[in-house]
Formats: sequence, C-alpha cells, structure tokens
Amino acid sequence: MERFEVNILGCGAAFPNQRHMTSGQLVCVHNERFMVDCGEGIQAQIWKFGFKTANLNHIFISHAHVDHFYGLLPFVSSLDLIQNRKSPLHIWLPEDLKEPLEYDFTTYCKLSFPLLMHGIDTCKAAVLYDGRNMTVESIPLNHRTPCCGFLFREKKKPRVLLPQKCLALGIPQTEFGRIKAGADWRKPDGTVIPNSELTTECTFQPRSYAYCSDTSYNPAMIPQIQGTTLLYHEATYLQSEIDQAEKYGHSTAAQAAATARAAAVKQLLIGHFSSRYDDDSLFLKEAQAIFPNTIASNEGMTVEVV
Amino acid sequence: MERFEVNILGCGAAFPNQRHMTSGQLVCVHNERFMVDCGEGIQAQIWKFGFKTANLNHIFISHAHVDHFYGLLPFVSSLDLIQNRKSPLHIWLPEDLKEPLEYDFTTYCKLSFPLLMHGIDTCKAAVLYDGRNMTVESIPLNHRTPCCGFLFREKKKPRVLLPQKCLALGIPQTEFGRIKAGADWRKPDGTVIPNSELTTECTFQPRSYAYCSDTSYNPAMIPQIQGTTLLYHEATYLQSEIDQAEKYGHSTAAQAAATARAAAVKQLLIGHFSSRYDDDSLFLKEAQAIFPNTIASNEGMTVEVV
Repeated sequence: MERFEVNILGCGAAFPNQRHMTSGQLVCVHNERFMVDCGEGIQAQIWKFGFKTANLNHIFISHAHVDHFYGLLPFVSSLDLIQNRKSPLHIWLPEDLKEPLEYDFTTYCKLSFPLLMHGIDTCKAAVLYDGRNMTVESIPLNHRTPCCGFLFREKKKPRVLLPQKCLALGIPQTEFGRIKAGADWRKPDGTVIPNSELTTECTFQPRSYAYCSDTSYNPAMIPQIQGTTLLYHEATYLQSEIDQAEKYGHSTAAQAAATARAAAVKQLLIGHFSSRYDDDSLFLKEAQAIFPNTIASNEGMTVEVV
Repeated sequence: MERFEVNILGCGAAFPNQRHMTSGQLVCVHNERFMVDCGEGIQAQIWKFGFKTANLNHIFISHAHVDHFYGLLPFVSSLDLIQNRKSPLHIWLPEDLKEPLEYDFTTYCKLSFPLLMHGIDTCKAAVLYDGRNMTVESIPLNHRTPCCGFLFREKKKPRVLLPQKCLALGIPQTEFGRIKAGADWRKPDGTVIPNSELTTECTFQPRSYAYCSDTSYNPAMIPQIQGTTLLYHEATYLQSEIDQAEKYGHSTAAQAAATARAAAVKQLLIGHFSSRYDDDSLFLKEAQAIFPNTIASNEGMTVEVV
C-alpha cells in the first residue's frame, strides 16, 4: 500500500518542557509531504529524528498562537540555507495571521524561492489543496482565536478493467486505456456496452487523516470527520480539569475520545498535552476507557494511517 | 568568591542541527542573571538542562539575524505563562531590530508585565547597564548587519577597613561605616588622618566576560576587551575556509585565538560553529595552537569566569 503516515515532531501545549516540544507534524501522503503546524524548535526535531522534507510544498498552520506557528519562519529560512530551494512554497494559514507573517518574512528573511501565503476562512470547511492523489480540507474548530484543523483524504482510485471480459467482447487492447478512463464500448452493430460491465470497482478504500488542534469539544465537526481512518485530536487536559479546558478553549482526553466514538473513526491519536501533568499515560487511560483504539503522541514517532 | 558564570544554551551557527542549537547564553553575575542572544528553541534548552531564570531582568540581543533572536518572543511569552511574572523586563537590541520586534510582541503576545525595549547604537562602545556590582557595555562588532557584543565587568570593591589601626587611633566603632565608605578621620586636635591610612586596597580583582558574536576578525575591539577574564569569540569557520569567513562577516578559530592573544585575555571560549564541520575538536585544535587556554562551547555546559 502506498505510504500514508504522520511524523510527530512536537505534541506539547503552550511551551516546550522536558517531555514535549510544541505542536508540529509532517504528513506523508504517497510521494508528497505536508507540514501541519510549526511551533518553536520544530525544525530541530526534524533534523534530530532524521525525518525527511523532500517534496514538501505545502505547510498548514491551524491558528495564530505562538506554540503553533513560531517555528515557521526559521524553518522556512533553513530550507533556503540548507537545501538551496528554488521551487515555490505554499503556506496556508488563518486570515488574521497572514499580514503579520508576511511582515515578518519581509523583514527578517531574504528567500531565494517564492513564498505564497493563502489566507483561510476558518469558519467554513473548504478544499484547500486538490492534488493528484489526495485533497486537504479545512475543518472549522472552536478555539479562543480563529482556528481550523486539516483533513487529508486519499482520492478514490479509478475502476479496474476486466481484461478477459473485454477480450471476449472483441475489444482491441488499444481501446483499454479509454475504457479504464471510464468510456463505454460501442460494438460494430451499434450496441453500447456500458463501462460498468467492462470494469469493476477498485477494492482500495481511500484513507483519511484529520488533524484537530486546538479546539474545545466540538460536535459540529463530527459529520465532516465521520469514518476518518486516523483522527488526531487535542487532549490538553484531563476530565478533572474540564473547567480549565472550557475556559481556554481546549478539550479533555475524554472529550477527544467521545468525538472519536461519535465520528466512528478507526483510530484516535491524542496530543497537545498540558505540562501540568507529568504522566501522559493518564490521558491515554482516560481516552481508552471511552475509545479503546487510542494512542498517545510522542516526539519522533511515526503513525501509519491504515 | 561570588558567582560569575556562563551557561551555554546554544553554540551553533545559522540553524539548529544534530550537534548544536543556535546562539543563546545565560550570564550569572552574583545574584543577577542576564540572557545574551536567544535563537530559536533556546527556552527549551533552559528547561532541558535545568538552568534557572530567577533575577533575569535584562536580555541582550547582538543582531537581527534569525539564529540570534528568534527564540526571544516565545521565551518571553513563556515567562508570562510559566512564572506569572509581574516585574519589568528590559530588552537591549540593535536599533534596526527594535521596531519589528515591538510589532511582533504587540501582534502575537499579551504580556502581563512591562516590556522595555532599548535600541543600541552598535557603532560605539557604551555602558548599557550600570548595576550595583557590575556593568554591561556594548562592543562594536564587524558583521554583515549592525551588530554588537557585550562586556560584563564586575565593579571594583571598596577599600577594606583596618580595624586595629582605627581603634589604636581612638576612632569610635560608630565611625567605621563612614570610613569604609571613604571618609578621612579628623582627630580632636584637628589633625586629619587620610582614608588611605585607615583602609587598604581590596585584593579582589574584578572579573570580566566579553561576548563577541557575530564578527569578522575585528582588531578594533582589542583595546576594549584588553585583559578580559573570559572571552567568548565566534569561530564559525576553520582557517581553510577563511574566504567564506570574510565573505559572510565571520571569523575562523585561528582569528578568534589571535584576538584572544592580542587582548591578553585569561581564557578563550569559542563557539558559533558552522554545521559544515562534523567535529568541533578541529576548531579547538586550530585555536589552541595560537592561544592554548581555549575551550570549546557545548550545549548545557557552565563556564566559570575565574
């Protein structure tokens, strides 16, 4: 199966501590890489763990809090210094962050490749990137500031040709390309054999990855992430501190798990852990009680989307 | 002897790599702490190595290159979040960096303590901070952009009272405070005993620390740093790449050592190592051939100024 995986660069909340760095991930879909959030020090995590940045042309930033974007400028600056990059780099970010970051890049960097910033309306779900094999959609989240998640979806594969059936019908092999692409077959007597009889549905099930951080408990997003293969959901607090979660626009591990259950996702990955707790297994235990197929993020880990 | 030490947080050039983080130090002088430069990820280094930030009221930034200041905003933001700081924080930085950083702090942070930015004219040596026990001066450096180093100097201690001599002269103990502060003694018959006969010079030799990064070979600064106890001097390149050093406004390890020798400093600490070399001992070997009492910076180390 083609590659679809998530590299965890940082999964702590607010500021780096002895256990975790701030938010950042690399999402690898087939031959493309995407960065999602880029807190301070995230580039050092990439070099430390030996993750790759080839074919990284799009970076997605969820919101304008320092722990989610302040590593972006030095990382992009290093792409210039280290890789002598020439190809354009697209940065997708909430509208309110676009102008300040454009100012910073203009003031502090002289890049030798084009940087294209795309403002996101975080209030609505929209396809941001439509690639050959996959799409990236924004997911409206509910935080203290405009914020959205990102949904990476593989595209359906085309129907599969039934070669024996085609040959039995006397269809020349030179026509197979057109039929694979969806064409019907017109016999010499004018009869039309519909494509659905010449091909069969591909058994491949498109996979998907939803990144949802930062957000308070947000049932409004459940229809959009329904059936997602892997859901990353923030779990800043435990249920015992639900008042703090509500106050600061965050979720508890139990709320992340309840969302995963309601959306019937295949697997839940929790992160964005508050440094007030010194044991991540507490988050895992709380979430697994509600949604057993939950794993906890940690720096350097790679999670396959399967 | 009272504390005077340097904590190395990062000593690599340009961008973090598997060996080094970008520039940052804590300088501890008696009961005060100062930060010098603050590259990306420097706060994480403080927490990682367990260094302290108590009594840190002044931060000095040498120049406007990303690897020397881009960790400042998230670090200051964390002082607010973690320590609930209320006392003012002073940031000393080249004039050209003042307006952009004020914009960034206004845009990205809401601090609950006063932040006072002081622009430095990097072309002249000047006392920036005059404390009870020490001063901090700017050192004009020669880089591609306005840049200065910082010289931390302990103040001379006052002369020491000779109590037996004072008592023999019939001076009441209630007068000792005035004499310690420099007063002469007038005997009842009107004769004046000068202070120099009632006190003796303190044997304490004030110590000093000069931070010089980034700079090309810069003999103009030698008079200012003459006799410095500890000199941190950048050594981005080896002598074999002196053309690169000159092109980018940096020094070689040999040039750092030549400066230390010309300034007759007690000890040389080199750093700001380029990632093009994979062995720091090369820098050390080159410098020690010229100035034997040289040590190489490394993250987490503490160097005493003695």
